[in-house]
Amino acid sequence: MTQVEEICKKAKAAATGLATLGTAVKDKALLAMADVFEANKDAIFEANKKDLAAAQASGISGAMLKRLELTDKKIAQMADGVRQIAALRDPVGETIDGYLRPNGMEVRRVRVPIGVIGIIYESRPNVTADAAALCMKSGNAVVLRGGSEAINSNLAIAKLINEAITPVGVPEGAVQIIETTDRAAARELMTMKPYVDCLIPRGGKGLIKTVVENSTIPVIEHGDGNCHVYVDGAADLKMAEEIALNAKVQNPSVCNAAETLLVSEQIASEFLPIICKRLADAGVEIRADEKARAIVSGLKEATDEDWATEYLDLIYALKVVSGVDEAIKHITRYGSRHTEAIVTEDYSAARKFTSEIDAAAVFVNVSTRFTDGYEFGKGAEMGISTQKLHARGPMGIEEMTTYKYIVTGNGQLRG
Amino acid sequence: MTQVEEICKKAKAAATGLATLGTAVKDKALLAMADVFEANKDAIFEANKKDLAAAQASGISGAMLKRLELTDKKIAQMADGVRQIAALRDPVGETIDGYLRPNGMEVRRVRVPIGVIGIIYESRPNVTADAAALCMKSGNAVVLRGGSEAINSNLAIAKLINEAITPVGVPEGAVQIIETTDRAAARELMTMKPYVDCLIPRGGKGLIKTVVENSTIPVIEHGDGNCHVYVDGAADLKMAEEIALNAKVQNPSVCNAAETLLVSEQIASEFLPIICKRLADAGVEIRADEKARAIVSGLKEATDEDWATEYLDLIYALKVVSGVDEAIKHITRYGSRHTEAIVTEDYSAARKFTSEIDAAAVFVNVSTRFTDGYEFGKGAEMGISTQKLHARGPMGIEEMTTYKYIVTGNGQLRG
Repeated sequence: MTQVEEICKKAKAAATGLATLGTAVKDKALLAMADVFEANKDAIFEANKKDLAAAQASGISGAMLKRLELTDKKIAQMADGVRQIAALRDPVGETIDGYLRPNGMEVRRVRVPIGVIGIIYESRPNVTADAAALCMKSGNAVVLRGGSEAINSNLAIAKLINEAITPVGVPEGAVQIIETTDRAAARELMTMKPYVDCLIPRGGKGLIKTVVENSTIPVIEHGDGNCHVYVDGAADLKMAEEIALNAKVQNPSVCNAAETLLVSEQIASEFLPIICKRLADAGVEIRADEKARAIVSGLKEATDEDWATEYLDLIYALKVVSGVDEAIKHITRYGSRHTEAIVTEDYSAARKFTSEIDAAAVFVNVSTRFTDGYEFGKGAEMGISTQKLHARGPMGIEEMTTYKYIVTGNGQLRG
Repeated sequence: MTQVEEICKKAKAAATGLATLGTAVKDKALLAMADVFEANKDAIFEANKKDLAAAQASGISGAMLKRLELTDKKIAQMADGVRQIAALRDPVGETIDGYLRPNGMEVRRVRVPIGVIGIIYESRPNVTADAAALCMKSGNAVVLRGGSEAINSNLAIAKLINEAITPVGVPEGAVQIIETTDRAAARELMTMKPYVDCLIPRGGKGLIKTVVENSTIPVIEHGDGNCHVYVDGAADLKMAEEIALNAKVQNPSVCNAAETLLVSEQIASEFLPIICKRLADAGVEIRADEKARAIVSGLKEATDEDWATEYLDLIYALKVVSGVDEAIKHITRYGSRHTEAIVTEDYSAARKFTSEIDAAAVFVNVSTRFTDGYEFGKGAEMGISTQKLHARGPMGIEEMTTYKYIVTGNGQLRG
């Protein structure tokens, strides 16, 4: 038996115990995890330094190095994040719905953990803590497989987690990490169908593609966010200005930031000079279509590729459309089905937009930046799912569960 | 562009219109489908005769031939099935949950169709009608890919469906069938991720395995049913006798029939002679462990393989266990996570069983035969899912939907 297989088998055995573990024990384990991170941050820093040195030696760039680096602040955030997860309501055991059948059977759907979740991720070592905590709260065993750049940090964090949770009474094998970082191990994890119920890739497009193409285990994808703000002819233009700006600049590097601004031709000549000034003041580069450039001079020209691009940067594609129908058509063609917003005071336009747009989240008069587990009031999330099966939008602890039917009767037979 | 790609692309275009198609139109289309089957059964029989002749020429056996054969009764059942689907409540547009956030945003989760569903199935031509009707009601476009044995019947049924639904106003491309039956076309369908949101294989283990291993599209599996009845030491033995019998003999060829009977040693010497007699009278072959054979003589010996086998036949594996803990352990090891039943009057044993058994359906004092869309009060189903993501247990029209978040506000910005 390979190491990967051994780990997955152990995780499956642990999942049985985890499924019926009381909320009190799980929360105690989570608080112990948070404490152990803070109490042993020097051990984490020491491991992290090895990763940073190796990264620098291999010529890894600034932004990636930043993501890899663990600081006092990041450790405190990691610990706080875990404490916030402990404070969430335990989703396991909830009766989702239930009813009495005419033959006297009581049918209930009860929320249970998925079982074993495999998480394949890239350079950020804090994912090790986040993912372990989310799986713990939702009663799932987890098999972690982090990127090679952060391997020392990941192993140190995973070791601390196990030191914290084992004395509390969490089954051994609940949180495990694959120690080798060779690709073969990741590929092997993708075929561990007898033991692993679900795989979640967290990282860039390449990683997600590899997992989708090679996994025989169901995958939950967290895809791109090519999000749009459409300013309708009937928009409150002051509100539109603030939403269009907030959606782009409040945090341009995240998936729920807007990438293209669509503006109705009805208000374009009034609105574009104002919003383009605001965006320019905020350091945003605008790539505009011909109609927009005819209204505001000096804008860069947008190509077809711009409509399809998730910049994750202070760049905004800008297009003038004839109205809500063309906006919907454009979004349907280029959007990534993440978050789409309309700004309008027109009831029918809002209704048409929410009805016809196919995306995880459709917003009226709200910044796209709100597609987020905390902002939706659900707490921490594994990511934002842009696929349609199982979980769509923020994937929190509730989405990390499944259900079983519990049916009780008094001798019912099928006739 | 290949034929498969063209079909899938067309289906995706149709899905947009289908998502907002009113219930009245969908129901009218379904009733038209039912009528057209009955009015044109001669055309169906003619196509079916070609399939039957080809099957006989290639030496296909009795049971398979029966499955392939369409009769007056089967056509009537097909039409009735479609009418029953028309009578179900439309799941699309339902608000699953919703709430107001402190910042004034209203967050709602609204049920929407999945989009495009691909269905790969084997010899039964009535699946063509069932699947098309379930997809129509749930607002999904469907790409059908039936087995070569039934291709003429499938094409005839699909043609009639389109004749029925197009005049009613259903978008063209809503129901399509792949005309070629070569394997390459099926493989190609499994990679049509840009257009197809979900694949459902319906057929034997080989088909399901092929789809799971080759698909880059999320797959919903309908697996085996290695179901158990556990008769506890505290069971009402008369009830246990009826449930153990019903679960095996009422229809042994379906996935929710029981395959292994587990009996507590506390009541084995009293219960086994009675149940073995009843089963023998019903023509059931029993394959028993040593302890059971020590109580009832003349029983065939069970091997380890028997515990893992889905007989789908009048064969019952029989094992004496020490109590509920050993029963759970056995089921956890050998069960296929479909349906597991305990018969007991002991409150704690029932609670332990429902809590610890990991299966789509866990029953107390009810025959395993009830895991079924109709019996659960949900109506027709695509199958019984034994996987954990998205749909578990009966997969009806509700499980053929996803949701989107609709968030309405008055200018909320992320701070």
